[in-house]
Amino acid sequence: MSDIRKTIPGGATWQEVAADRRRHRDATVEKCRRQQRDATVDKCMPEDTDVSASNGTLLTSHMQLLNLEELTMTNYNVEDITRGHPNAESITSAFLRRAALAQGVVNCITELLPDQAMRRAKELDAYWLEHKKPIGPLHGVPISVKEHIAMKGLDQNAGFVSWVGRVAEEDALLLQILWDAGAVFHARTAQPQSLMHLETSSNLYGVTANPFNPSLTAGGSSGGEGALVGLRGSVLGIGTDIGGSIRSPAANNGVFGFKPTVGRLPILGWSAPMAGCEAILGTIGPLSTSLEGVKLFMKTVVDAKPWLRSPSLVALDWKDISGLFSEKRLKVAVMWDDEVVKPHPPITRALDNIVMKLHKSQNVDVVDWAPQGHDRAWSIIAGLYFADGGAQTSEAINASGEPWMPLSEWIIKDNPHVKKHDVDSLWSACAERDEYRQKYAELWNTMADVDVILCPAGPGVAPKLNAARYWGYTSQWNLLDYPAVVFPAKDHVSVDKDGADVADYTPRNDADEYNWSQWKEHGAEGYKGGPISLQLVGRRYDDEKVLAALEVILEETGLPTTVPPTIEITPQPLGLPEFQSFSSMA
Amino acid sequence: MSDIRKTIPGGATWQEVAADRRRHRDATVEKCRRQQRDATVDKCMPEDTDVSASNGTLLTSHMQLLNLEELTMTNYNVEDITRGHPNAESITSAFLRRAALAQGVVNCITELLPDQAMRRAKELDAYWLEHKKPIGPLHGVPISVKEHIAMKGLDQNAGFVSWVGRVAEEDALLLQILWDAGAVFHARTAQPQSLMHLETSSNLYGVTANPFNPSLTAGGSSGGEGALVGLRGSVLGIGTDIGGSIRSPAANNGVFGFKPTVGRLPILGWSAPMAGCEAILGTIGPLSTSLEGVKLFMKTVVDAKPWLRSPSLVALDWKDISGLFSEKRLKVAVMWDDEVVKPHPPITRALDNIVMKLHKSQNVDVVDWAPQGHDRAWSIIAGLYFADGGAQTSEAINASGEPWMPLSEWIIKDNPHVKKHDVDSLWSACAERDEYRQKYAELWNTMADVDVILCPAGPGVAPKLNAARYWGYTSQWNLLDYPAVVFPAKDHVSVDKDGADVADYTPRNDADEYNWSQWKEHGAEGYKGGPISLQLVGRRYDDEKVLAALEVILEETGLPTTVPPTIEITPQPLGLPEFQSFSSMA
Repeated sequence: MSDIRKTIPGGATWQEVAADRRRHRDATVEKCRRQQRDATVDKCMPEDTDVSASNGTLLTSHMQLLNLEELTMTNYNVEDITRGHPNAESITSAFLRRAALAQGVVNCITELLPDQAMRRAKELDAYWLEHKKPIGPLHGVPISVKEHIAMKGLDQNAGFVSWVGRVAEEDALLLQILWDAGAVFHARTAQPQSLMHLETSSNLYGVTANPFNPSLTAGGSSGGEGALVGLRGSVLGIGTDIGGSIRSPAANNGVFGFKPTVGRLPILGWSAPMAGCEAILGTIGPLSTSLEGVKLFMKTVVDAKPWLRSPSLVALDWKDISGLFSEKRLKVAVMWDDEVVKPHPPITRALDNIVMKLHKSQNVDVVDWAPQGHDRAWSIIAGLYFADGGAQTSEAINASGEPWMPLSEWIIKDNPHVKKHDVDSLWSACAERDEYRQKYAELWNTMADVDVILCPAGPGVAPKLNAARYWGYTSQWNLLDYPAVVFPAKDHVSVDKDGADVADYTPRNDADEYNWSQWKEHGAEGYKGGPISLQLVGRRYDDEKVLAALEVILEETGLPTTVPPTIEITPQPLGLPEFQSFSSMA
Repeated sequence: MSDIRKTIPGGATWQEVAADRRRHRDATVEKCRRQQRDATVDKCMPEDTDVSASNGTLLTSHMQLLNLEELTMTNYNVEDITRGHPNAESITSAFLRRAALAQGVVNCITELLPDQAMRRAKELDAYWLEHKKPIGPLHGVPISVKEHIAMKGLDQNAGFVSWVGRVAEEDALLLQILWDAGAVFHARTAQPQSLMHLETSSNLYGVTANPFNPSLTAGGSSGGEGALVGLRGSVLGIGTDIGGSIRSPAANNGVFGFKPTVGRLPILGWSAPMAGCEAILGTIGPLSTSLEGVKLFMKTVVDAKPWLRSPSLVALDWKDISGLFSEKRLKVAVMWDDEVVKPHPPITRALDNIVMKLHKSQNVDVVDWAPQGHDRAWSIIAGLYFADGGAQTSEAINASGEPWMPLSEWIIKDNPHVKKHDVDSLWSACAERDEYRQKYAELWNTMADVDVILCPAGPGVAPKLNAARYWGYTSQWNLLDYPAVVFPAKDHVSVDKDGADVADYTPRNDADEYNWSQWKEHGAEGYKGGPISLQLVGRRYDDEKVLAALEVILEETGLPTTVPPTIEITPQPLGLPEFQSFSSMA
């Protein structure tokens, strides 16, 4: 297993450990790069390509390094692969190559897995040849995986330098299930220090940048996934989410991302501090270039009855509710604003667009959603994230001597809601959480058969680096454990459309003030190119309904169910902050 | 609302508070007693009745005080009422009277609700007259309710003297659902101090005795329910269970009792210390004179989609799996012994009987179950019950100055597994719990499609008072959150059958030693008449399957699906311990 990392021995400085991890990453990436110019490459070169740029900072120049077949294949979505059944070896090879290119552009990878992925792909092709049928519903689909999800024999550091060298003894249960369904695991992706940023910066691997505007974050904590799927280095990725960590990167990179209800997908085998904490539970979930990819992922995993192997899960079959909204009109409640932090203009513009179209639809009813106590929700969840006052996470950071990232400081040390609980005060806080959940359920019960809430996925598009400091639009639904899907609104920040002056807006509170200070400082120009995404939320366990409702909404509004196959990029030099200097990014 | 209690004002001693509660109880009970000899009563007097006994200590003499109609009606089961639709007023009146008699025999009631129950019954009869159909699936079924489950306007003391005067502001959600289904609430029943005994003794209401042998406990903590249903003062009762509190009283009184998986029935509105604790979750569930009563209760409540009103619940419909075991042979694994505490001879005899019959069945496969680490399971759950070191429960006891009951001392102060956790050690303990659950799921996965485990419901029949000191046969399934139903094995302890000498048994550990010292001391003679019950356990969320499997097992072994309509009692004087002296029991 040549992909298995060699951990450097104890006694190394954190810098040495990090450098070793990056060397390992770069070696695996290098293996996936085309070693010399392929004669077929020129065929697919876009007309306006700046072929002189060859330093890996420009996506367009990178894309030259895919030949036409590779470019075509990596524009497939999950459903193209599972229905068309292309040769798994070709598909895998193409996605490995594109993932390597993505790494050069946005720094999203912790390691690529060329040897084992290609071995697996060959095995699948042999199976197909012999049995004339797929091995399972995901036969030959390359899947990328956030690093803190266990892969046997590979490092599982969860973004902490001190955890480097923790080698997984077996694959996470989810990966075992996906493997049995025919998956090929080709890439492992970056996460931030602590796993608790809505961006992706670590002392191990550096910063993951946004493919559409490198001055913006890819989001986090599954930001490696977000950027990789955004660049089509993967059609289906696995992230995790306890406050927005699937949805923020999905939103920031213009792809689909789904946070299911807790207990529907197995998390067994992920690695994170605070094992045994259950006050707020995280979930695992898919990011994909297509809604179909999200749905197939969910159905495949739940159909495997994972609750028999992970008893913390709920024994709830994946329901076929395809006919639901032909029998019943879909009723959507729109939450324009959570009344804590007002979204930036591009978000409201996109929401306005879609709602206008929904109002015209014959098949959808639209009402407004009046949010209730979202500020209190944040204070509850922010306190419950770190009921030990952040001790375990701090210890994991401090053990190696690595510096604290600004957003780790922000969420743990500067967070007024974090305190060291005793058992008594923890129980009180949990009771307060339960009471909030109860009130929100009662609120929903007053909203005459509303099916889903349509709302922003964040207080703006992808923030500037270190500025992702308002979680409320995503963490709200973690607190309530409501399933939520993020989808691209097929639009980007534009100076023309979003450049109106907002200087006279009076913020409501500090968080609102911070969010608007960002917009005032950078304006539409600063966020130019950032994909605009929205979020659709359902009641607890209404996972199937949320996805079915999204299908109806996309259909009724003419929005696409897949992200565009050709990525339009405004080339810009990467502007990475100072603490990135040790990163091996180009 | 004349049933509403008058709370005595603050400043009273605990003795005064308790005396007031008992006066209130007795007044409500007195209202339900026949005030003078009914001419029809003699018709139903058993031939061997000792009519000279009139002090309330003998069930047979009490039963005289039911007339023939009342005796007939109180021998109905839930299904007789819901299918036969007798007049709700007559049914309610009959059960009120029988509950009053039961109170005189075993002391199981905290208050009867004659005024509101009769009002409700009249309302139901009027509905029937007008609509010619039942108001819901439980139309006219009298239901008894453990006291700590909220009833609007009534005391909710949960067995603590210091909590007397906490008056519920609204009905528990479960009761609202049952009300909508047509229930009549006629009785509230006793629970022990702390809710954490497998018997029912409190300074407020005294000891609840076993109807079949008053030297034995009725079990607990839903012991008031167990004894009341055992005496047919109720056909359907509501208990709660975090370590055996539904199943112990069901077993001790020879009735059906079901602990569902956590999250299937709403607990919203119950009262207990440690709100917000979620390391081990309790459940609510039915006790009934019939398996059909249990099933109808479950289906009725789950069909009401309680998760929409209580978001902690799982959105899992009640599945109709009636055809399951005609398509697939039922596979039963028998756990004879948990390998920690060996059951007393009557239990093993009953298990042997039933297994012998199952082996002969064409429709059932039988294998043995090899338990794994049940001693460790007890150490995990016993520690997690009181993660605050028992502080909140102790405070609730100490606040009034009431004395500690022996079993409160035993479970909190003398329990070596109880410690005051900090958040860190609590998380570790929860992680250990999760690991144990994981291992047990893996164990089950190795047992080739076993559907259910058949096992003892306790280490013996109903223990002597203060001797219920081994919870393992029930708490095991709370730790694992497996649904479990207790059912009567249609047999009682008998000197002839169970009297063999066991003096040479060498106990395995202290708990085993204690359990066997009890048997050696009291022998078959000491437990004579005690009903023998067994337990059937399924995997998490297999609630429907457990009940369906029990139906098959009863059918195949010729065991009844209802408890016998006529209770055979060996009259004995009540032998209550000293600390009962303040009780108003006869």
